[in-house]
Amino acid sequence: MKKLKNIKRILIANRGEIAIRAIRAIRELGGESIAVYSEADKDSMHVKLADYSICIGKAPSDKSYLNIPSILSAIEISYADAVYPGYGFLAENPDFASILEKSNIKFIGPKSQTTRLTGDKAAARKAAQEAGVPIIPGSPPVETLKEALEIADSIGYPVLLKAAAGGGGRGMRVVHSPQELTRLLPVAQREAEANFGDDRVYIEKFITNPKHIEVQILADEYGNVVYIGDRECSIQRRHQKLLEESPSPFITDEVRKKMGEAAAKFAKHVGFTGAGTVEFIVDKEMNFYFIEMNGRIQVEHPVSEMTSGIDIVAWQMLIADGQELDFKQEDIKNSGHAIEFRINAEDPESFTPNPGTIKELYLPGGFGVRVDTHIYKGYTVPPYYDSLIAKLIVYGKTREEAIIRGKRALTELVVEGIKTTKDFHLKILEDPEFLSGRYTTSLVDEKYLGQKE
Amino acid sequence: MKKLKNIKRILIANRGEIAIRAIRAIRELGGESIAVYSEADKDSMHVKLADYSICIGKAPSDKSYLNIPSILSAIEISYADAVYPGYGFLAENPDFASILEKSNIKFIGPKSQTTRLTGDKAAARKAAQEAGVPIIPGSPPVETLKEALEIADSIGYPVLLKAAAGGGGRGMRVVHSPQELTRLLPVAQREAEANFGDDRVYIEKFITNPKHIEVQILADEYGNVVYIGDRECSIQRRHQKLLEESPSPFITDEVRKKMGEAAAKFAKHVGFTGAGTVEFIVDKEMNFYFIEMNGRIQVEHPVSEMTSGIDIVAWQMLIADGQELDFKQEDIKNSGHAIEFRINAEDPESFTPNPGTIKELYLPGGFGVRVDTHIYKGYTVPPYYDSLIAKLIVYGKTREEAIIRGKRALTELVVEGIKTTKDFHLKILEDPEFLSGRYTTSLVDEKYLGQKE
Repeated sequence: MKKLKNIKRILIANRGEIAIRAIRAIRELGGESIAVYSEADKDSMHVKLADYSICIGKAPSDKSYLNIPSILSAIEISYADAVYPGYGFLAENPDFASILEKSNIKFIGPKSQTTRLTGDKAAARKAAQEAGVPIIPGSPPVETLKEALEIADSIGYPVLLKAAAGGGGRGMRVVHSPQELTRLLPVAQREAEANFGDDRVYIEKFITNPKHIEVQILADEYGNVVYIGDRECSIQRRHQKLLEESPSPFITDEVRKKMGEAAAKFAKHVGFTGAGTVEFIVDKEMNFYFIEMNGRIQVEHPVSEMTSGIDIVAWQMLIADGQELDFKQEDIKNSGHAIEFRINAEDPESFTPNPGTIKELYLPGGFGVRVDTHIYKGYTVPPYYDSLIAKLIVYGKTREEAIIRGKRALTELVVEGIKTTKDFHLKILEDPEFLSGRYTTSLVDEKYLGQKE
Repeated sequence: MKKLKNIKRILIANRGEIAIRAIRAIRELGGESIAVYSEADKDSMHVKLADYSICIGKAPSDKSYLNIPSILSAIEISYADAVYPGYGFLAENPDFASILEKSNIKFIGPKSQTTRLTGDKAAARKAAQEAGVPIIPGSPPVETLKEALEIADSIGYPVLLKAAAGGGGRGMRVVHSPQELTRLLPVAQREAEANFGDDRVYIEKFITNPKHIEVQILADEYGNVVYIGDRECSIQRRHQKLLEESPSPFITDEVRKKMGEAAAKFAKHVGFTGAGTVEFIVDKEMNFYFIEMNGRIQVEHPVSEMTSGIDIVAWQMLIADGQELDFKQEDIKNSGHAIEFRINAEDPESFTPNPGTIKELYLPGGFGVRVDTHIYKGYTVPPYYDSLIAKLIVYGKTREEAIIRGKRALTELVVEGIKTTKDFHLKILEDPEFLSGRYTTSLVDEKYLGQKE
C-alpha cells in the first residue's frame, strides 16, 4: 500500500462524516491528522478520532469552518503541511487555495487557477467547447434584455437562466416565454449579485426531465487522467441529491465510455489535478451535455469506490503528495452495483431539518454494507450545518441485489430521537420509476413533493 | 438475486451476531425470520431485528438454546418450515437434525447421517483415506494400552491422543514418551467418556508447530461441490481462533489448489450438502493433512465472502431450499485479502471473560470495513455465552493493505464498560512472525501467554 512521502500532517478543514473519511485515509497512508472544530462540534466524533484537534471558533460556519484566518492560525500552530478541504465550506474557494499555495502549504485539491476556471460556469462551458465535449446549447453571459430575448428565441423555450457564479442547483430559473424572460432577467441578475457577488447570468436550453449523471476523475501532476465510473444522481429534492448509484442503470456501456472519455478530455484540457467530478445532463435519447466540473470530493464518492475498488480519498492525498497514479485507464474494472442512501436528520415527508439528540442507534452491517458516519448514541446533531448524519452504502453483484440489500440495511437502521430520511429511501426502493432505472431529476419533486411545491 | 422458493419461514436456533447474520440473509432472500432467545437475551439485537421472536427458556444454554423440546415447540407455534442452526449449540447435533428430518422441517445443514460420519473423527479419517485425501499418520481408536504403545512407537513420539468424538481443539493431549502414554491413556479415555459420552481415543502423529488452514466448501443437492478459498486460522489461543485471514499468506497457489481439490473430494465422498469447512494441518514443508470437516457455518466465514464475493449464508439457505449452485469452480475468482478480528468481551492479556454493560460504543466503518455484531451502546453482555461480541472484517487489495486497514479500524473501535480483545489484535498486527505470514498455531500460546501457561 502506498504511503505519503512528502506530506506529514494534514489539517482537515471540515467536519462530520467527511472529516472522518479523511482521518481514515490519512491513518492508512501513514500521516497525522489534525481536526478543527467549532464550539458546537466539540463532541463530534471527528474530534475524537483525529490525532490532534483544534477549536477554531463558534457556530455558524462563517465564524469557524469558513473563517480563513482561524484556519490559517490552526495550520500554523499545528505545523500542518497540507489541508484537506472535503466538500462544501472552503473546498472550492480559489482564494483559500491561493493563500495556501503562497504559504507553501499543500492544498489537497486542484490548483487555485483551475478552480477559478471550473467555478466560472461560462468559462467552464467555453473550455468544454474547446475540448470537444458536448454542451447544452446556450449563450455566454448576456448583457442586455434584447440580447437575451434573441438568444432564447434561437434556442427555443423553455430556457434556463443561470448565474455564472452559481452551482449545485443554486441560481437557476426556468423561463417559458419572452414575457417571463423580460420579467425575470433583472431579478436573476440582482439575485446573482446578492448571492454570489457576480451579476452575470447566461441562458441555456432547458432539457425537460433530464437525468443527472456524473463521472469520477482522478488526475495526477504528471498528466495522467483516468475516469473511474459514472454515478447516477437523479434522485434529488430541489437539486439536492438524496440517493446515488453506480453505474447508471439507464445509459448503455457505449454511452458510458463516451461520457468517461469526454470527462477525462475536459479534465485534461483545464489542467485538472486531484479528484474531480464532471457532471452531465442526459436526455431521454442518451444525449449527454456537460454542466460543470466539481474539483472536490463528492458526498457520493463511495459508490465509485465500491464498484472500482479504488480508494478515491487516499488518491487525492497521494496526488497532492506528488505521487503518480499507479494504474491506467485499462486497469480500471468496475464491477457490481452500489447505491448510497443519504441519511439526513430531516423529516422524511417534508425534508425539514430535525436536529436533536440521538437516543437510540443501531447501524446496519454485514455482507455488502458500508457505513460512513460521525454519529453515535447520545450525540446531539447541531442545527448549524447540513443535515447529513450518515451515508449507508450497499453493494451487490447486480442492481437488483443492491436494491434488496439496501432495503434490508435500511430496515435494520435504528435512529431514535430525531427524524431521518430512512423512510423516504424505503419508499423510493419500491417506486416503479426508480426500479425501471429510467427515473429523472423530477421524480422526487413531482411525485413525492408535488403537493408541497 | 435468488429468492427462496420452498422455504418460507426460518427459525434461527442461535443468538448473537450469527443470528443477525442469518436474519440479514433471510430478509434478502425474501423469507421470514423467527428469533428464539433465552430470558438472559431478551434485549439482544437479534430479537429486535427478526420478524418474530419467541422466548425458549432461561440461561444457561441447556435450558434454552440446547433444549431441543423447547426449540421444537417454538418451531410448532411459529409455523417455521426450516431451522438455521448457526455454529455451536445444536449446529452439529445429528439427533436434532434427524428429529427435524422426521418432522419434515428443513434443517439448514448437512443430512444427519453425514453429520454422524463427519462428527466421528475415526470415521472421518477413514473416509478421507478412502477419498485419497492425505491424513496424519495414526491409528483407528485404540483398544488397549499395549496396542497404543505399539502404534505410538511405529509413528514416533511426540504423538497426539484425540477423543474420537471431540472437536474444535477439545479432547486432545500431546504425549512425548511411552511413560506418559501409559499414564495418560486411561485419563484421556475417562475424559472422553465424561465430555462426549464416548470413550474412544485414537493416536496421531503430532505435527510440531503446524499451521491450521481450512477450505470453505459449498455443495448442493445435485452433486455440485465447489471450494471457495482457504482461510488461515493459526492465530489461536489454546485452540480457540482469534484472528483469521484469507488467503493463507503461507501456502503457494499450487498447494492452495491441491488443498481445495482435496477438500471438495472429501465433501463429495461423504455426500456432504450445504456449507462446510474442511480443516487441514499444514507443516513447514507445506504438506497438508486432513483433520476434520465441520458441517456448519464457521465464525470466520466472512473473510471468504469478502475475497470471493459469494454470500455463503445465503447459499446455505438456497441449498436447503433445493436450489442448484449457479456457478462452477472455474467461475470462482478470489481476489484481494481479508482479515477477521474476533472482538471478544475478554481481558486482552489474560483472555478472562469480561461481561458487563457497554457504556460507550463506536464501530469502525468506511472503505473496506465490515462489522458483524449484535451489540449496541447500553447492551449488557450476559455471562452465560461465548464472549464474541463483534467481528471486525477488513479487506484490502493486498495483505499489506488489509493489515494497515485493520490497524486503522481497530484504532477507531471504541467499546467502553467492558474489556475487549482489541489491544491483543493491535499487538498481533505488529508481530514480526504474524507479518511474515509464517506464524503457526503456537505463536499466541508461546509468545503472548508463555508466562501464564
